[in-house]
Amino acid sequence: MKRICIDMDEVLADTYAKFEDIYAERFGRRLQPEDYRGMKIYDLPGAADIRNAMYEPGFFRDLPVMEHAREVAEELYANYEVFITTAATEFKHSLIDKWEWLHEHLPFIHHHRIVLCGDKRIVHGDFMIDDKVRNLSGFNGTGLLFTASHNVNDEGYYRVNNWLEVRDYFRRERNDHQGLA
Amino acid sequence: MKRICIDMDEVLADTYAKFEDIYAERFGRRLQPEDYRGMKIYDLPGAADIRNAMYEPGFFRDLPVMEHAREVAEELYANYEVFITTAATEFKHSLIDKWEWLHEHLPFIHHHRIVLCGDKRIVHGDFMIDDKVRNLSGFNGTGLLFTASHNVNDEGYYRVNNWLEVRDYFRRERNDHQGLA
Repeated sequence: MKRICIDMDEVLADTYAKFEDIYAERFGRRLQPEDYRGMKIYDLPGAADIRNAMYEPGFFRDLPVMEHAREVAEELYANYEVFITTAATEFKHSLIDKWEWLHEHLPFIHHHRIVLCGDKRIVHGDFMIDDKVRNLSGFNGTGLLFTASHNVNDEGYYRVNNWLEVRDYFRRERNDHQGLA
Repeated sequence: MKRICIDMDEVLADTYAKFEDIYAERFGRRLQPEDYRGMKIYDLPGAADIRNAMYEPGFFRDLPVMEHAREVAEELYANYEVFITTAATEFKHSLIDKWEWLHEHLPFIHHHRIVLCGDKRIVHGDFMIDDKVRNLSGFNGTGLLFTASHNVNDEGYYRVNNWLEVRDYFRRERNDHQGLA
């Protein structure tokens, strides 16, 4: 069974939605996606310390689930060896928040398949779905770049714009594999 | 730089000492290592539910550091790409406990080098120091079996009985490597 490594932030969980809330609270203005195209919200002028919110207990606990993430992840889980591989060790409190978030929203994922790490070069597998080129570039298998505001100008990886495109990619992958077998 | 993956429980941290305490509290008798040679303490008759202590907050937070673990791990860290790879995701509260334990006792380890996981087959590297044959058997590199009560009858891996033997193994490894270079 082929292995897929799936990232959490900006792939399964919508951290941008939360940063938009924090920005609005701080600056009294609701950002639109085009306001931070090609960057992260905390890269906007004056907003650098918004990043510190990730160190707070609870930041990662109540993030919205990305659209179609649950049903597609469940389909992948049935057909591949899925691991959740998430950079978390910088933020101590994120460890339990992320564990509980997965338990609530993707309860079919066995705890054996959760990897809370820092540098993802240590994981290996056949596919990685991630929003950061630096994670994909150190991966031994095929990297799929999940579109996020900060990566819209990045190139060099097969891009998936949403979870339905992820579903279709792996349905084709299975068909091709079965066709060859 | 070659990569070494180092386990925590029964390698860096002395969980047996804690299980001995819990056993003594429960059964009014202090175990000696020969009482549980070839097994885990919670494999003793009537002691199965002692394992549940690992689900409690704090269990992994105050474990003693194994003798010479700190100074040898620090020597390895200076000469190899050391990652701490520990099975933790079964026990939600262990995640923060282990993070804080490392921060306190091995503060030179960058958070990028911590991997809290379940199934260690996903990590890869050149060396793995672990007390469980099932972790070593799924590893792509060289496995070193760190002696623990439960593994004294296991074979098939180079055995290190303590941290001074680990130190000597890797001093030889570096000398051999430099000799060849």
